[in-house]
Amino acid sequence: MQIAIPLFDRFAPLDAVGPYQVLAALPGAELIFISERARGVSDSSGALTLRADATYADVPHPDVILVPGGFGVDDHLAPGPLQDWLLAADQTSTWTTSVCTGALILAAAGLLAGREATTNWQAKEELARRGIKVRDERYVFDGKYATAAGVSAGIDMALALAARIAGDKVAQGIQLGIEYDPQPPFNAGSPETAPPEIVAALRSGSRFNR
Amino acid sequence: MQIAIPLFDRFAPLDAVGPYQVLAALPGAELIFISERARGVSDSSGALTLRADATYADVPHPDVILVPGGFGVDDHLAPGPLQDWLLAADQTSTWTTSVCTGALILAAAGLLAGREATTNWQAKEELARRGIKVRDERYVFDGKYATAAGVSAGIDMALALAARIAGDKVAQGIQLGIEYDPQPPFNAGSPETAPPEIVAALRSGSRFNR
Repeated sequence: MQIAIPLFDRFAPLDAVGPYQVLAALPGAELIFISERARGVSDSSGALTLRADATYADVPHPDVILVPGGFGVDDHLAPGPLQDWLLAADQTSTWTTSVCTGALILAAAGLLAGREATTNWQAKEELARRGIKVRDERYVFDGKYATAAGVSAGIDMALALAARIAGDKVAQGIQLGIEYDPQPPFNAGSPETAPPEIVAALRSGSRFNR
Repeated sequence: MQIAIPLFDRFAPLDAVGPYQVLAALPGAELIFISERARGVSDSSGALTLRADATYADVPHPDVILVPGGFGVDDHLAPGPLQDWLLAADQTSTWTTSVCTGALILAAAGLLAGREATTNWQAKEELARRGIKVRDERYVFDGKYATAAGVSAGIDMALALAARIAGDKVAQGIQLGIEYDPQPPFNAGSPETAPPEIVAALRSGSRFNR
Protein backbone atom coordinates (compact mmCIF):
# COMPACT_ATOMS: atom_id res chain seq x y z
CA MET A 1 0.00 0.00 0.00
CA GLN A 2 1.62 3.19 -1.21
CA ILE A 3 0.96 6.38 0.75
CA ALA A 4 2.11 9.59 -0.93
CA ILE A 5 2.60 12.88 0.89
CA PRO A 6 3.24 15.82 -1.45
CA LEU A 7 5.50 18.51 -0.03
CA PHE A 8 5.71 22.14 -1.09
CA ASP A 9 7.66 25.11 0.18
CA ARG A 10 6.31 26.54 3.43
CA PHE A 11 4.33 23.42 4.35
CA ALA A 12 3.46 22.92 8.03
CA PRO A 13 5.74 20.13 9.29
CA LEU A 14 3.39 18.59 11.86
CA ASP A 15 0.61 18.36 9.23
CA ALA A 16 2.78 15.91 7.34
CA VAL A 17 4.79 14.20 10.08
CA GLY A 18 1.94 13.53 12.53
CA PRO A 19 0.05 11.37 10.02
CA TYR A 20 3.33 9.99 8.69
CA GLN A 21 4.22 8.60 12.14
CA VAL A 22 0.81 6.94 12.35
CA LEU A 23 0.51 5.60 8.82
CA ALA A 24 4.12 4.39 8.58
CA ALA A 25 3.22 1.85 11.28
CA LEU A 26 0.51 0.26 9.11
CA PRO A 27 1.48 -3.25 8.03
CA GLY A 28 2.64 -3.17 4.42
CA ALA A 29 2.63 0.59 4.12
CA GLU A 30 5.18 2.29 1.88
CA LEU A 31 5.31 5.99 2.70
CA ILE A 32 6.80 8.40 0.21
CA PHE A 33 7.29 12.16 0.24
CA ILE A 34 7.07 13.68 -3.23
CA SER A 35 7.35 17.06 -4.90
CA GLU A 36 7.65 18.44 -8.41
CA ARG A 37 11.26 17.30 -8.24
CA ALA A 38 13.22 15.28 -5.70
CA ARG A 39 14.63 17.91 -3.33
CA GLY A 40 14.69 19.20 0.20
CA VAL A 41 11.47 21.07 0.98
CA SER A 42 11.45 23.64 3.78
CA ASP A 43 8.81 24.96 6.11
CA SER A 44 7.95 28.65 6.40
CA SER A 45 10.76 29.38 8.86
CA GLY A 46 13.31 27.60 6.70
CA ALA A 47 14.63 25.77 9.77
CA LEU A 48 13.06 22.42 8.89
CA THR A 49 13.78 20.67 5.60
CA LEU A 50 12.21 17.35 4.74
CA ARG A 51 13.42 15.44 1.73
CA ALA A 52 11.03 14.63 -1.09
CA ASP A 53 12.55 11.41 -2.41
CA ALA A 54 10.56 11.24 -5.64
CA THR A 55 8.72 13.38 -8.16
CA TYR A 56 5.00 13.54 -8.78
CA ALA A 57 5.62 11.64 -12.01
CA ASP A 58 7.33 8.85 -10.10
CA VAL A 59 4.21 8.16 -8.04
CA PRO A 60 1.21 8.22 -10.37
CA HIS A 61 -1.03 5.74 -8.53
CA PRO A 62 -0.68 5.91 -4.74
CA ASP A 63 -3.30 4.11 -2.70
CA VAL A 64 -3.47 6.98 -0.23
CA ILE A 65 -2.84 10.68 -0.85
CA LEU A 66 -2.24 12.99 2.11
CA VAL A 67 -1.97 16.72 1.42
CA PRO A 68 -0.58 18.85 4.27
CA GLY A 69 -1.35 22.51 4.83
CA GLY A 70 0.75 25.50 5.73
CA PHE A 71 1.37 29.01 4.50
CA GLY A 72 2.64 27.60 1.20
CA VAL A 73 -0.86 26.38 0.33
CA ASP A 74 -1.49 29.77 -1.24
CA ASP A 75 0.98 28.88 -4.01
CA HIS A 76 -1.04 25.82 -5.04
CA LEU A 77 -4.61 27.05 -5.30
CA ALA A 78 -4.32 27.59 -9.05
CA PRO A 79 -3.68 24.90 -11.68
CA GLY A 80 -0.09 23.70 -11.63
CA PRO A 81 2.02 20.60 -11.06
CA LEU A 82 0.52 19.72 -7.66
CA GLN A 83 -3.09 20.11 -8.79
CA ASP A 84 -2.38 18.23 -12.02
CA TRP A 85 -0.89 15.36 -10.06
CA LEU A 86 -3.72 15.37 -7.52
CA LEU A 87 -6.41 15.24 -10.20
CA ALA A 88 -4.72 12.31 -11.92
CA ALA A 89 -3.73 10.41 -8.77
CA ASP A 90 -7.18 10.84 -7.23
CA GLN A 91 -8.68 8.87 -10.11
CA THR A 92 -7.12 5.68 -8.77
CA SER A 93 -6.57 6.43 -5.07
CA THR A 94 -8.41 4.50 -2.40
CA TRP A 95 -8.22 7.45 -0.01
CA THR A 96 -7.60 11.12 -0.76
CA THR A 97 -6.97 13.12 2.38
CA SER A 98 -5.79 16.44 3.71
CA VAL A 99 -4.68 18.06 6.93
CA CYS A 100 -5.33 21.67 7.90
CA THR A 101 -5.38 24.05 4.92
CA GLY A 102 -4.45 21.18 2.63
CA ALA A 103 -8.24 20.96 2.19
CA LEU A 104 -8.10 24.26 0.30
CA ILE A 105 -5.88 22.61 -2.30
CA LEU A 106 -8.23 19.65 -2.64
CA ALA A 107 -11.15 22.05 -2.97
CA ALA A 108 -9.36 24.24 -5.50
CA ALA A 109 -8.69 21.15 -7.58
CA GLY A 110 -12.41 20.38 -7.51
CA LEU A 111 -12.00 17.16 -5.55
CA LEU A 112 -14.32 18.14 -2.70
CA ALA A 113 -17.23 19.32 -4.87
CA GLY A 114 -20.49 18.39 -3.17
CA ARG A 115 -18.62 16.94 -0.21
CA GLU A 116 -18.49 17.69 3.49
CA ALA A 117 -15.05 18.57 4.79
CA THR A 118 -13.12 20.45 7.43
CA THR A 119 -9.96 22.49 7.69
CA ASN A 120 -8.01 24.80 10.01
CA TRP A 121 -10.46 26.89 12.06
CA GLN A 122 -9.04 30.04 10.49
CA ALA A 123 -9.64 28.72 6.96
CA LYS A 124 -13.22 27.50 7.33
CA GLU A 125 -14.76 30.58 5.73
CA GLU A 126 -12.36 30.31 2.83
CA LEU A 127 -13.27 26.65 2.35
CA ALA A 128 -16.98 27.46 2.53
CA ARG A 129 -16.53 30.18 -0.10
CA ARG A 130 -15.28 27.43 -2.39
CA GLY A 131 -18.67 25.77 -2.09
CA ILE A 132 -17.71 23.05 0.36
CA LYS A 133 -20.02 22.05 3.23
CA VAL A 134 -17.71 22.81 6.13
CA ARG A 135 -18.20 20.77 9.28
CA ASP A 136 -17.02 21.70 12.77
CA GLU A 137 -15.38 18.36 13.39
CA ARG A 138 -11.87 17.19 14.22
CA TYR A 139 -11.92 15.23 10.97
CA VAL A 140 -14.53 14.42 8.35
CA PHE A 141 -14.88 11.34 6.18
CA ASP A 142 -17.07 11.69 3.09
CA GLY A 143 -16.72 8.76 0.74
CA LYS A 144 -13.06 8.23 0.04
CA TYR A 145 -12.20 11.79 1.10
CA ALA A 146 -10.96 12.53 4.59
CA THR A 147 -10.09 16.00 5.82
CA ALA A 148 -8.66 17.03 9.17
CA ALA A 149 -8.88 20.29 11.11
CA GLY A 150 -5.75 22.32 11.85
CA VAL A 151 -2.21 20.94 12.11
CA SER A 152 -2.35 18.48 15.04
CA ALA A 153 -5.74 17.13 13.89
CA GLY A 154 -3.90 15.10 11.28
CA ILE A 155 -2.89 12.65 14.01
CA ASP A 156 -6.52 11.98 14.93
CA MET A 157 -7.56 11.66 11.29
CA ALA A 158 -4.68 9.33 10.50
CA LEU A 159 -5.63 7.03 13.36
CA ALA A 160 -9.22 6.93 12.12
CA LEU A 161 -7.93 6.24 8.61
CA ALA A 162 -5.64 3.50 9.92
CA ALA A 163 -8.70 1.87 11.50
CA ARG A 164 -10.61 1.95 8.22
CA ILE A 165 -7.63 0.51 6.36
CA ALA A 166 -6.47 -2.13 8.80
CA GLY A 167 -9.10 -2.41 11.54
CA ASP A 168 -9.55 -1.01 15.01
CA LYS A 169 -7.02 -3.27 16.70
CA VAL A 170 -4.22 -2.20 14.41
CA ALA A 171 -5.12 1.46 14.88
CA GLN A 172 -5.21 1.02 18.65
CA GLY A 173 -1.81 -0.65 18.55
CA ILE A 174 -0.43 2.29 16.62
CA GLN A 175 -1.99 4.74 19.07
CA LEU A 176 -0.36 2.91 21.97
CA GLY A 177 2.90 2.76 20.04
CA ILE A 178 3.01 6.54 19.75
CA GLU A 179 1.61 6.82 23.30
CA TYR A 180 -1.10 9.12 22.04
CA ASP A 181 -2.78 9.85 25.35
CA PRO A 182 -2.88 13.61 24.90
CA GLN A 183 -2.83 15.83 27.98
CA PRO A 184 -2.44 19.41 26.78
CA PRO A 185 -1.42 21.73 29.61
CA PHE A 186 -4.12 24.21 28.55
CA ASN A 187 -7.61 23.91 27.11
CA ALA A 188 -6.86 26.39 24.35
CA GLY A 189 -6.83 24.17 21.29
CA SER A 190 -10.00 25.38 19.64
CA PRO A 191 -11.63 28.78 19.25
CA GLU A 192 -14.53 27.48 21.36
CA THR A 193 -12.33 26.75 24.37
CA ALA A 194 -9.41 29.19 24.11
CA PRO A 195 -9.57 32.48 26.03
CA PRO A 196 -11.41 35.01 23.84
CA GLU A 197 -8.46 37.40 23.78
CA ILE A 198 -6.23 34.64 22.42
CA VAL A 199 -8.75 33.85 19.69
CA ALA A 200 -9.01 37.52 18.84
CA ALA A 201 -5.24 37.89 18.71
CA LEU A 202 -4.90 35.05 16.25
CA ARG A 203 -7.82 36.25 14.15
CA SER A 204 -6.33 39.73 13.85
CA GLY A 205 -2.77 38.60 13.32
CA SER A 206 -1.06 36.44 10.83
CA ARG A 207 -2.51 33.02 10.22
CA PHE A 208 0.47 31.57 12.01
CA ASN A 209 1.04 27.85 11.94
CA ARG A 210 -1.42 27.25 9.11
CA MET B 1 16.84 32.02 21.89
CA GLN B 2 18.50 29.08 20.20
CA ILE B 3 16.75 25.70 20.36
CA ALA B 4 18.83 22.75 19.18
CA ILE B 5 17.39 19.37 18.21
CA PRO B 6 20.04 16.69 17.66
CA LEU B 7 19.13 14.10 15.03
CA PHE B 8 20.53 10.60 14.68
CA ASP B 9 19.77 7.71 12.35
CA ARG B 10 16.49 5.94 13.16
CA PHE B 11 15.10 8.77 15.25
CA ALA B 12 11.31 8.91 15.68
CA PRO B 13 10.10 11.79 13.48
CA LEU B 14 7.15 12.93 15.59
CA ASP B 15 9.37 13.10 18.70
CA ALA B 16 11.29 15.88 16.98
CA VAL B 17 8.67 17.53 14.78
CA GLY B 18 5.86 17.77 17.32
CA PRO B 19 7.92 19.94 19.70
CA TYR B 20 9.49 21.70 16.71
CA GLN B 21 6.08 22.89 15.51
CA VAL B 22 5.31 24.22 18.99
CA LEU B 23 8.66 25.81 19.83
CA ALA B 24 9.20 27.34 16.38
CA ALA B 25 6.22 29.58 17.12
CA LEU B 26 7.89 31.08 20.20
CA PRO B 27 8.78 34.74 19.64
CA GLY B 28 12.48 35.05 18.94
CA ALA B 29 13.12 31.33 18.70
CA GLU B 30 15.78 30.04 16.35
CA LEU B 31 15.32 26.32 15.84
CA ILE B 32 18.17 24.24 14.48
CA PHE B 33 18.54 20.56 13.71
CA ILE B 34 22.06 19.29 14.25
CA SER B 35 24.06 16.10 13.93
CA GLU B 36 27.69 15.01 13.96
CA ARG B 37 27.86 16.45 10.45
CA ALA B 38 25.39 18.42 8.33
CA ARG B 39 23.44 15.75 6.45
CA GLY B 40 20.05 14.21 5.86
CA VAL B 41 19.07 12.01 8.79
CA SER B 42 16.53 9.24 8.25
CA ASP B 43 14.03 7.51 10.48
CA SER B 44 13.96 3.74 11.00
CA SER B 45 11.92 3.08 7.85
CA GLY B 46 14.20 5.24 5.74
CA ALA B 47 11.17 6.93 4.20
CA LEU B 48 11.56 10.20 6.12
CA THR B 49 14.74 12.24 5.95
CA LEU B 50 15.11 15.47 7.87
CA ARG B 51 18.06 17.71 7.22
CA ALA B 52 20.51 18.52 9.98
CA ASP B 53 21.72 21.96 8.91
CA ALA B 54 24.65 22.20 11.29
CA THR B 55 27.11 20.11 13.26
CA TYR B 56 27.29 19.68 17.01
CA ALA B 57 30.40 21.85 16.97
CA ASP B 58 28.46 24.64 15.24
CA VAL B 59 25.99 24.89 18.12
CA PRO B 60 27.94 24.75 21.39
CA HIS B 61 25.63 26.88 23.55
CA PRO B 62 21.95 26.44 22.71
CA ASP B 63 19.45 27.85 25.18
CA VAL B 64 17.25 24.79 24.81
CA ILE B 65 18.26 21.20 23.99
CA LEU B 66 15.60 18.74 22.86
CA VAL B 67 16.63 15.12 22.37
CA PRO B 68 14.17 12.91 20.47
CA GLY B 69 13.84 9.17 20.87
CA GLY B 70 13.46 6.29 18.46
CA PHE B 71 15.08 2.96 17.73
CA GLY B 72 18.36 4.75 17.01
CA VAL B 73 18.69 5.71 20.67
CA ASP B 74 20.47 2.40 21.23
CA ASP B 75 23.44 3.72 19.20
CA HIS B 76 23.94 6.67 21.57
CA LEU B 77 23.88 5.15 25.05
CA ALA B 78 27.66 4.95 25.20
CA PRO B 79 30.12 7.86 25.12
CA GLY B 80 30.36 9.35 21.65
CA PRO B 81 29.79 12.59 19.72
CA LEU B 82 26.17 13.05 20.83
CA GLN B 83 26.91 12.45 24.51
CA ASP B 84 30.02 14.62 24.36
CA TRP B 85 28.00 17.45 22.87
CA LEU B 86 25.15 17.00 25.36
CA LEU B 87 27.47 17.09 28.36
CA ALA B 88 29.11 20.28 27.14
CA ALA B 89 25.96 22.03 25.90
CA ASP B 90 24.06 21.17 29.08
CA GLN B 91 26.54 23.23 31.08
CA THR B 92 25.14 26.43 29.62
CA SER B 93 21.62 25.45 28.54
CA THR B 94 18.58 26.98 30.17
CA TRP B 95 16.50 23.89 29.46
CA THR B 96 17.63 20.36 28.64
CA THR B 97 14.77 18.18 27.46
CA SER B 98 13.90 14.87 25.88
CA VAL B 99 10.98 13.12 24.26
CA CYS B 100 10.26 9.40 24.50
CA THR B 101 13.40 7.27 24.73
CA GLY B 102 15.53 10.38 24.32
CA ALA B 103 15.49 10.30 28.14
CA LEU B 104 17.66 7.18 28.01
CA ILE B 105 20.36 9.22 26.26
CA LEU B 106 20.15 11.99 28.87
CA ALA B 107 20.34 9.36 31.61
CA ALA B 108 23.25 7.53 29.99
CA ALA B 109 25.12 10.83 29.84
CA GLY B 110 24.53 11.26 33.57
CA LEU B 111 22.38 14.35 33.17
CA LEU B 112 19.36 12.95 35.02
CA ALA B 113 21.27 11.69 38.07
CA GLY B 114 19.09 12.20 41.15
CA ARG B 115 16.27 13.58 39.02
CA GLU B 116 12.69 12.56 38.37
CA ALA B 117 11.90 11.88 34.74
CA THR B 118 9.68 9.99 32.35
CA THR B 119 9.99 8.20 29.01
CA ASN B 120 8.13 5.91 26.63
CA TRP B 121 5.98 3.45 28.63
CA GLN B 122 8.00 0.57 27.18
CA ALA B 123 11.29 2.10 28.33
CA LYS B 124 10.39 2.98 31.92
CA GLU B 125 12.05 -0.08 33.42
CA GLU B 126 15.18 0.61 31.43
CA LEU B 127 15.23 4.20 32.67
CA ALA B 128 14.67 3.05 36.25
CA ARG B 129 17.56 0.59 35.92
CA ARG B 130 19.73 3.61 35.19
CA GLY B 131 18.89 4.93 38.64
CA ILE B 132 16.35 7.55 37.59
CA LYS B 133 13.16 8.13 39.58
CA VAL B 134 10.64 7.34 36.88
CA ARG B 135 7.28 9.08 37.10
CA ASP B 136 4.05 7.98 35.41
CA GLU B 137 3.35 11.41 33.98
CA ARG B 138 2.85 12.80 30.50
CA TYR B 139 5.88 14.98 31.12
CA VAL B 140 8.07 15.76 34.08
CA PHE B 141 9.91 18.96 34.96
CA ASP B 142 12.74 18.68 37.46
CA GLY B 143 14.86 21.78 37.66
CA LYS B 144 15.92 22.69 34.16
CA TYR B 145 15.30 19.15 32.92
CA ALA B 146 12.05 18.25 31.18
CA THR B 147 11.26 14.77 29.90
CA ALA B 148 8.20 13.63 27.98
CA ALA B 149 6.55 10.23 27.70
CA GLY B 150 6.35 8.43 24.35
CA VAL B 151 6.41 10.08 20.91
CA SER B 152 3.29 12.28 20.87
CA ALA B 153 3.91 13.42 24.47
CA GLY B 154 6.52 15.80 23.14
CA ILE B 155 3.74 18.11 21.99
CA ASP B 156 2.34 18.39 25.51
CA MET B 157 5.77 18.88 27.03
CA ALA B 158 6.69 21.51 24.46
CA LEU B 159 3.54 23.50 25.22
CA ALA B 160 4.33 23.38 28.94
CA LEU B 161 7.90 24.44 28.16
CA ALA B 162 6.64 27.27 25.93
CA ALA B 163 4.57 28.49 28.88
CA ARG B 164 7.59 28.51 31.17
CA ILE B 165 9.67 30.34 28.59
CA ALA B 166 7.15 32.88 27.32
CA GLY B 167 4.12 32.71 29.58
CA ASP B 168 0.74 31.01 29.49
CA LYS B 169 -0.82 33.35 26.95
CA VAL B 170 1.88 32.71 24.37
CA ALA B 171 1.62 28.96 24.92
CA GLN B 172 -2.15 29.10 24.58
CA GLY B 173 -1.79 31.06 21.35
CA ILE B 174 0.55 28.42 20.02
CA GLN B 175 -1.85 25.67 21.06
CA LEU B 176 -4.68 27.40 19.23
CA GLY B 177 -2.40 27.98 16.25
CA ILE B 178 -1.78 24.25 15.89
CA GLU B 179 -5.42 23.58 16.81
CA TYR B 180 -4.31 21.15 19.47
CA ASP B 181 -7.71 20.02 20.65
CA PRO B 182 -6.96 16.31 20.52
CA GLN B 183 -9.80 13.88 19.91
CA PRO B 184 -8.26 10.45 19.39
CA PRO B 185 -10.74 8.00 17.85
CA PHE B 186 -9.79 5.40 20.46
CA ASN B 187 -8.82 5.50 24.12
CA ALA B 188 -5.77 3.32 23.55
CA GLY B 189 -2.95 5.78 24.06
CA SER B 190 -1.58 4.42 27.33
CA PRO B 191 -1.11 0.92 28.74
CA GLU B 192 -3.65 1.82 31.42
CA THR B 193 -6.43 2.48 28.90
CA ALA B 194 -5.61 0.33 25.89
CA PRO B 195 -7.24 -3.10 25.56
CA PRO B 196 -5.08 -5.60 27.47
CA GLU B 197 -4.47 -7.72 24.35
CA ILE B 198 -3.09 -4.66 22.54
CA VAL B 199 -0.76 -3.89 25.44
CA ALA B 200 0.37 -7.52 25.53
CA ALA B 201 0.98 -7.54 21.77
CA LEU B 202 3.20 -4.48 21.98
CA ARG B 203 5.03 -5.77 25.04
CA SER B 204 5.82 -9.06 23.34
CA GLY B 205 6.67 -7.59 19.98
CA SER B 206 9.17 -5.08 18.80
CA ARG B 207 9.28 -1.76 20.60
CA PHE B 208 7.80 -0.20 17.50
CA ASN B 209 7.61 3.54 17.21
CA ARG B 210 10.07 4.18 20.00
